[in-house]
Amino acid sequence: MLVVMKAHATEDEIRGVCQKIEKLGYRAHPMPGAQRTAIGITGNKGEVEQGTLEEMPGVQEVIKVSKPYKLVSRDIKEDNTVIRFTGTDVAIGGNGLAIVAGPCAIESREQAFAVAERVSRAGAQFFRGGAYKPRTSPYSFQGLGEEALRIMAEIRQQYGMKIITEAIDNESLDLVEEYADMIQIGARNMQNFSLLKRAGRAKKPVLLKRGMSATLEEFLMAAEYILSEGNYNVALCERGVRTFADHTRNTLDLSVVPAVQRLSHLPILVDPSHGTGKRNKVTPLSRAAVAVGADGLMVEVHNNPDEAMSDGPQSLFPDQFDELMVQVRQIAAVVGRTVPGIGMYEPTAVSK
Amino acid sequence: MLVVMKAHATEDEIRGVCQKIEKLGYRAHPMPGAQRTAIGITGNKGEVEQGTLEEMPGVQEVIKVSKPYKLVSRDIKEDNTVIRFTGTDVAIGGNGLAIVAGPCAIESREQAFAVAERVSRAGAQFFRGGAYKPRTSPYSFQGLGEEALRIMAEIRQQYGMKIITEAIDNESLDLVEEYADMIQIGARNMQNFSLLKRAGRAKKPVLLKRGMSATLEEFLMAAEYILSEGNYNVALCERGVRTFADHTRNTLDLSVVPAVQRLSHLPILVDPSHGTGKRNKVTPLSRAAVAVGADGLMVEVHNNPDEAMSDGPQSLFPDQFDELMVQVRQIAAVVGRTVPGIGMYEPTAVSK
Amino acid sequence: MLVVMKAHATEDEIRGVCQKIEKLGYRAHPMPGAQRTAIGITGNKGEVEQGTLEEMPGVQEVIKVSKPYKLVSRDIKEDNTVIRFTGTDVAIGGNGLAIVAGPCAIESREQAFAVAERVSRAGAQFFRGGAYKPRTSPYSFQGLGEEALRIMAEIRQQYGMKIITEAIDNESLDLVEEYADMIQIGARNMQNFSLLKRAGRAKKPVLLKRGMSATLEEFLMAAEYILSEGNYNVALCERGVRTFADHTRNTLDLSVVPAVQRLSHLPILVDPSHGTGKRNKVTPLSRAAVAVGADGLMVEVHNNPDEAMSDGPQSLFPDQFDELMVQVRQIAAVVGRTVPGIGMYEPTAVSK
Amino acid sequence: MLVVMKAHATEDEIRGVCQKIEKLGYRAHPMPGAQRTAIGITGNKGEVEQGTLEEMPGVQEVIKVSKPYKLVSRDIKEDNTVIRFTGTDVAIGGNGLAIVAGPCAIESREQAFAVAERVSRAGAQFFRGGAYKPRTSPYSFQGLGEEALRIMAEIRQQYGMKIITEAIDNESLDLVEEYADMIQIGARNMQNFSLLKRAGRAKKPVLLKRGMSATLEEFLMAAEYILSEGNYNVALCERGVRTFADHTRNTLDLSVVPAVQRLSHLPILVDPSHGTGKRNKVTPLSRAAVAVGADGLMVEVHNNPDEAMSDGPQSLFPDQFDELMVQVRQIAAVVGRTVPGIGMYEPTAVSK
Repeated sequence: MLVVMKAHATEDEIRGVCQKIEKLGYRAHPMPGAQRTAIGITGNKGEVEQGTLEEMPGVQEVIKVSKPYKLVSRDIKEDNTVIRFTGTDVAIGGNGLAIVAGPCAIESREQAFAVAERVSRAGAQFFRGGAYKPRTSPYSFQGLGEEALRIMAEIRQQYGMKIITEAIDNESLDLVEEYADMIQIGARNMQNFSLLKRAGRAKKPVLLKRGMSATLEEFLMAAEYILSEGNYNVALCERGVRTFADHTRNTLDLSVVPAVQRLSHLPILVDPSHGTGKRNKVTPLSRAAVAVGADGLMVEVHNNPDEAMSDGPQSLFPDQFDELMVQVRQIAAVVGRTVPGIGMYEPTAVSK
Repeated sequence: MLVVMKAHATEDEIRGVCQKIEKLGYRAHPMPGAQRTAIGITGNKGEVEQGTLEEMPGVQEVIKVSKPYKLVSRDIKEDNTVIRFTGTDVAIGGNGLAIVAGPCAIESREQAFAVAERVSRAGAQFFRGGAYKPRTSPYSFQGLGEEALRIMAEIRQQYGMKIITEAIDNESLDLVEEYADMIQIGARNMQNFSLLKRAGRAKKPVLLKRGMSATLEEFLMAAEYILSEGNYNVALCERGVRTFADHTRNTLDLSVVPAVQRLSHLPILVDPSHGTGKRNKVTPLSRAAVAVGADGLMVEVHNNPDEAMSDGPQSLFPDQFDELMVQVRQIAAVVGRTVPGIGMYEPTAVSK
Repeated sequence: MLVVMKAHATEDEIRGVCQKIEKLGYRAHPMPGAQRTAIGITGNKGEVEQGTLEEMPGVQEVIKVSKPYKLVSRDIKEDNTVIRFTGTDVAIGGNGLAIVAGPCAIESREQAFAVAERVSRAGAQFFRGGAYKPRTSPYSFQGLGEEALRIMAEIRQQYGMKIITEAIDNESLDLVEEYADMIQIGARNMQNFSLLKRAGRAKKPVLLKRGMSATLEEFLMAAEYILSEGNYNVALCERGVRTFADHTRNTLDLSVVPAVQRLSHLPILVDPSHGTGKRNKVTPLSRAAVAVGADGLMVEVHNNPDEAMSDGPQSLFPDQFDELMVQVRQIAAVVGRTVPGIGMYEPTAVSK
Repeated sequence: MLVVMKAHATEDEIRGVCQKIEKLGYRAHPMPGAQRTAIGITGNKGEVEQGTLEEMPGVQEVIKVSKPYKLVSRDIKEDNTVIRFTGTDVAIGGNGLAIVAGPCAIESREQAFAVAERVSRAGAQFFRGGAYKPRTSPYSFQGLGEEALRIMAEIRQQYGMKIITEAIDNESLDLVEEYADMIQIGARNMQNFSLLKRAGRAKKPVLLKRGMSATLEEFLMAAEYILSEGNYNVALCERGVRTFADHTRNTLDLSVVPAVQRLSHLPILVDPSHGTGKRNKVTPLSRAAVAVGADGLMVEVHNNPDEAMSDGPQSLFPDQFDELMVQVRQIAAVVGRTVPGIGMYEPTAVSK
């Protein structure tokens, strides 16, 4: 922390602030400048509680300096975290891009399989589908719950894709942990600290989506909650932030990808479906996400968006997803990444 | 919903969109204009799922029109909701202003009583104090939990103030419902729909704070979740939204007060402590909140902000709160409101 | 400026940064902390050009500390600036509130006088009216230009009100300086530095409106441009900022009023008409602006909003303005301010 | 425009609104729905002045529907605008990407030539360099003015690159029009309508940067000002918008690229230097900009960023620009674009 004094601050006022800092148990480093004095504070273990420093006579401003995150930081671990899924070569955070695709919500066995068949064939290694849907309106479709989880478990069985699905409270997290391969924490729950702690005690990796108005620091601190409970397998996901701009549902902030990669060892995916909310922008922004260096993509695909029970307008048709994968592979090559594909799915082979 | 066609749209394209709308089960109202045709949609019961309308040939844009909230709307109930607390004259939403004050967190019995004694004497009818604290960092003080609830129950006993405190998950909500008079749902949980539903089944009134980037519609829809489960005693609370402005911790959006009052029958309070994050701005913004027509204030007061375990820099000293109450009473009179005071606390009477 | 090193930074890296700082002509103050070292920089006259410091090995982050404004700061001048208008008691920044009212645009002599008669009678000391209108569309009404200025000069003659009107380029500023009593620089031109410099060389006071996404620092720096050219009579005006919130046209940021007053000696008004864009919110937010401590109000009033050529939906009817003035006087009394009135207008006296 | 009535609105209220609409000279289309009636308005030539519709009894809300832009719209011109520069193959908006590079400001002949030599060799067809700098502080370097324009004219002579530089007022625009090949209007002047009109009368193409908080509609309307004066050679440039996010100087909104391309025939470039404000993010975001489909890039390059008089921290070193161009060419190929290069520069050939 740094205390900036007013230009008119007297010697006494500066001394007073230094004494207060020492009294709070820290060390004060006064730096007299041409115009004013600044006082650095060191010696704190965690975050400094600034108390009433800002109100003391002669004080202009108090500036927070040290970053509160630890376990998510490259200061602690310099190498990239790679999340591995047992029994496969599939990983998040390695050289290969993680491609997650599927419908917004699981609406029926037929719909889920129809989409799964197509995205698997196009090369997705992860299948997404909502079982518990956080909807703005209590009157909207809220998901099929455990039935959806069972359908997705069958999809894993048949297509070999790993399953990612969202938990919205401790109860649903218990079930998601049981059925799925990776637990998603949605944007609206990014600061549901109770849920983050529960996810930190889970045995499965966690995909944490950025909150709609989360700063980079808050995003990393939310991940820190999960790691601090012992679960180190966390991937982040940018999905657009809320701004004044109204030509997309959210403003996809691709610059957060290199920013995360500079500060943290955790992998980061991009969700251009929620990030734009418009089907015709998903493919260009997917290309951009791979070009900027993201570790993967999360894309909504629906076999019949017209009748989708949620997020129809932002879901790709399966043919569009095929085309997206072609483009993604080409861009991946330019940035030195691969798109592994699960390689295990042979339609003729697995069907009975 | 309204479909706006491109200026170049052909008759066929317009007819195609109308047919699609009818096929979705709605009614289409084409309105040919000088430059382009717009097509109104009626006949929907809930929200229209727009499906692929936006992607159809000739379509420029799809505009959402109808508001999804029902129970919170003045369309359903024209008169203001007044939340009453049994055994007292205290209410939220009536002519009297509701004044809620207390420390950010309950840190000890001594601290809580020291603050309670002062805010009660100054005229607060409600005592606030965190038992479960949603903190950005997992390493920050997380609250005393049930012990804090017990301390607050004693405070109610001694000073007659009603207790408001935050629940952060279903477990803590059970306890808060048992001990407190009103259950607070914090800004970070405004779209924790699982928690909102649980609050909707609670027997106590709910104070719902606006999320950091919640639109008015989302704010009202979050309240709708609570009402839709049967709990009609909901008060809203503006506490600042996130913007680019960096001179305050959040940007207090006072215009939301008349906007809520126009659309909804629910009362709305203002929290200038979180809304500004700076002690020296709490009093001016409290005056402004009353002047704009808010139904009450929620203010953080600490007997020793220097050693507060959270939010020290934004907590008022008790003397400052006394002064604030003097000003608030004067402004209240101008806007035709009163500040009741609980009238039951006589320092000499209750002291042993 | 402060350079924060990484936790892993070596002694050599820290030394390298210190040497670079000294080479740039500043002084380096290394402060070793428990987790990492921070290095303060002093000895700079103006803003430090940080060059490539952020890219040096071992550097985590570079934080800007010193504020670039000088003349607008209370560091230079502790007492409030009071802008006086010769030949009258009217002032901006003193104990009395400055009330500015009038139509968005001057549309005709009849309209302007009709509004002027009413706002003058209600107590406005300043008349506003656009002669040059910055409109989002090139096809919208752009103002009557010099004819409007002549009409306003007549209004001053008849009603004694001072005239405030906007200049949008150097040419219009020449004319506004000639005819009006105060030159307005609009929100869209807040960083039109060429225009600010010209206003700084004007002989008339300047009303500077906050840009739609201006931070407090940028707002003060725009005023600094004017003062740096020799014109010290500058008043600021908050008129709403752009955020995600869509229930008002802009989000009125009332907390900027005490924030400006803490840092600067310049007076600050509030414009609740542009700040909300909705007639039904102008009166409540006007009350709030006075309650928060603003030095005045700028309000749009139109005798026939239905046929206004611009901003009809946010203009008050004259009767509403009368009522607003009654409320404003009451709130002003609570915060120790007066609403002087020009005292010179006696309807019976000036009428033929 | 669409008027949404309250659920409780009476037949009389609906009729009243329809009559008011007809009286304003438009046509009313009432659409009774299950919950409420909406009334469409057609027959307007330009923007409907909604007057007091929103205040009428029974009215819930008034929603703007028609878009105010005309000349910039694909409704008027379906084919992409291609801006050609006489005497060369260089173009903006065609199949080839336009690469604009150079220092933030021209500081000296030596600096400008040193940068020009490198960016030309790497393949930039356009050279950028500020002669007139809009700086937040009046005490910062404001540019060399006409001297800088002369230096850039020499650079065109020697390297064949086209010159793009910013005009900040009518005076500087006269000179920029004389010396440069393309006139830049900066973000801070995007709504300086006086300057836009002057640019609309210029004989040279215009590069219009998006304002810091401009919606897509405002961005297009600013371009409309230029076209409406007769200058059809306008290219747009996304350079980041202002949001709460603080890990970059601005938030680069790449989704605006496909959004512009859907609505308008004008080309759009991306400036990742201002869009991020951080050197280490320029290359990844440049890749992303090309991948998303931008028609070109505008990048700051400095031969000695440490001593740059402005924007040092976001300027690439020449070697980094070389590397960026390699990556850009590869991504361009994936999206079916080329990076032409001026093909005319042969270092040995042009030196005397």
